[in-house]
Amino acid sequence: MNQKQNTKSALHEKEGIPQPETFSASSLEKISQSRKVQPSAAELISGILAHDKVALSRAITLVESTSVTHLAKANEIINGCLPYANKSVRIGITGVPGVGKSTFIEAFGKYLTSLGKKVAVLTIDPSSTISHGSILGDKTRMEELVKDENAYIRPSASGETLGGVARKTRETIILCEAAGFDTIIIETVGVGQSETAVHSMVDFFLLLKISGAGDELQGIKRGIMEMADAIVINKADGDNINKAKLAKTEFNRALHLFPAKKSGWIPTVATCSSITKDGIDSVWETISNYFELVKANHYFEEKRKEQNQYWMMETINEQLKNNFYNHPEIAKLITSSQQAVLANELSPFAAAQKLLEFYFKK
Amino acid sequence: MNQKQNTKSALHEKEGIPQPETFSASSLEKISQSRKVQPSAAELISGILAHDKVALSRAITLVESTSVTHLAKANEIINGCLPYANKSVRIGITGVPGVGKSTFIEAFGKYLTSLGKKVAVLTIDPSSTISHGSILGDKTRMEELVKDENAYIRPSASGETLGGVARKTRETIILCEAAGFDTIIIETVGVGQSETAVHSMVDFFLLLKISGAGDELQGIKRGIMEMADAIVINKADGDNINKAKLAKTEFNRALHLFPAKKSGWIPTVATCSSITKDGIDSVWETISNYFELVKANHYFEEKRKEQNQYWMMETINEQLKNNFYNHPEIAKLITSSQQAVLANELSPFAAAQKLLEFYFKK
Repeated sequence: MNQKQNTKSALHEKEGIPQPETFSASSLEKISQSRKVQPSAAELISGILAHDKVALSRAITLVESTSVTHLAKANEIINGCLPYANKSVRIGITGVPGVGKSTFIEAFGKYLTSLGKKVAVLTIDPSSTISHGSILGDKTRMEELVKDENAYIRPSASGETLGGVARKTRETIILCEAAGFDTIIIETVGVGQSETAVHSMVDFFLLLKISGAGDELQGIKRGIMEMADAIVINKADGDNINKAKLAKTEFNRALHLFPAKKSGWIPTVATCSSITKDGIDSVWETISNYFELVKANHYFEEKRKEQNQYWMMETINEQLKNNFYNHPEIAKLITSSQQAVLANELSPFAAAQKLLEFYFKK
Repeated sequence: MNQKQNTKSALHEKEGIPQPETFSASSLEKISQSRKVQPSAAELISGILAHDKVALSRAITLVESTSVTHLAKANEIINGCLPYANKSVRIGITGVPGVGKSTFIEAFGKYLTSLGKKVAVLTIDPSSTISHGSILGDKTRMEELVKDENAYIRPSASGETLGGVARKTRETIILCEAAGFDTIIIETVGVGQSETAVHSMVDFFLLLKISGAGDELQGIKRGIMEMADAIVINKADGDNINKAKLAKTEFNRALHLFPAKKSGWIPTVATCSSITKDGIDSVWETISNYFELVKANHYFEEKRKEQNQYWMMETINEQLKNNFYNHPEIAKLITSSQQAVLANELSPFAAAQKLLEFYFKK
């Protein structure tokens, strides 16, 4: 802090002993410089390929930006990184709030870096607000991992629809892979439709659970269990161990009711503790077995191809809608059309037809 | 058949006794006339309002047509009928193949007409082919109902995407209501996403089940149970009665795990037999109780308003996509873009961006 400003504070009593600057003048200079100069797309690409986290973070910020000039630059960076991407394993992790996703990812991520892996953790949370409330939350909850030089944690893009957030995360994966991260973890908040979005961008989908409280059925209800390649019952420690084992049996039984997976993989159920670290290594062993299988039977490439196709179509569909609904005259007309529909003066279809005719004439 | 043509048949042996015409000359004349003359929209509207089933069927055929000239006429008819629509109760019925949907609807529909109601049965089945294979199936399976002058059965539009089929069924509801049908039953095939489409156009959603075979969990899995206002366990007759009662207890228990409904309605579970007709009357009693509740608490209008809004947006989104993907030059470009994406030469987003730029320039 600047000493001069401090003396103007209402809380100031007397001058006291001069304090050293919290930030050195040269650091401040650097930060201020870095804020002024916008590195070019080429500079960011070479930074990313040199595994520079600062360049990576800046590129992700461009990807997340809603400005049109940033869009072109972001696309340039993504395409520049593309030849160096695709070489990671992509793991989706979901679970309802309270199952301990952050502590699990911290323990699991630390285990992976101890094996020499480079781990990027991205989150998809369309509910996170402009204030980036979740950043602090995530980062403090993953205290150890955030300090690990072989790990990179990036919270969700915010203030957007799920479609927008998901697309941006999907693009961020490419950047992280080009920056040398070989294990990408995508965490989702475990509420609403975000699991489907995550499922469409990962190779392996892990459902985190805890024992008890009818939670078993909740997962089935939302069709999430059907997507899972593994169910891991967390918090299997202390008094919970027996309950967790029972839950494991229960889930195993339930999994048998689902149709066989196209991958040929038979989903597994395991227990673990993010506190005692029991079972964390087996989770990775399971995932490794999965990748061995799907690389041998070529499901791995097939699925990635399908996902690429899906994301191309999704992007098109999203943009077609944006272009329509953000059209200033359409936006006005929609309100009056909606009123006519609600008053039963116009059928929903006739109203839609009118708006579309107007739109396509423009 | 015409006698003269018959004598030319390769199967003709000798003249034999002259047969009477199967169709009278005047009937043939009528049919031939009706095929030539296309009644105007105004004529069809007044036919529908006079409760003429032939006019209704013709109007529905226009709604189902994919021709652009028919579209305008269909929209005119729908808007003409709109002031007379909306006065029915709309009931969705789903259940996996084998639960006896057709026999249930036959028994239920006959019960309703015996109460003096006018019942229209529409089906949504995007899998039905151009050959209208399901028409015969449905009609023969509902033998009694199809002969009932107070009932009208119309199978699914065919050869279309679910979105298209659903939109057309939604428009057909308006026509049926204007034609005096006060109870609209929408049947869906119970596979895939068609339940969601049906749910978005009915006031009350009934899930038909049978006891046993792990079917209980199957329903939960696809989130259909969550949409149900009532679960009816069919085939509760003979040796099945006890199993059906057990299933009822099971479903009742499972329903309690779902969050409360916005309608304020607590979903019910009942058993019935479409053969002995046991419980058919209670199904209608339950539905009547539901309507009493939601009309009193105004959820009924609220939901219909929301549904209208939904259908307006759905129609727009569907047309935006059709316009893009059916664009002849885009159709060509998509193929090459997909190849570039699959070869990892272009990110899915950049490919989408390129296509969109080309499209919006046109």
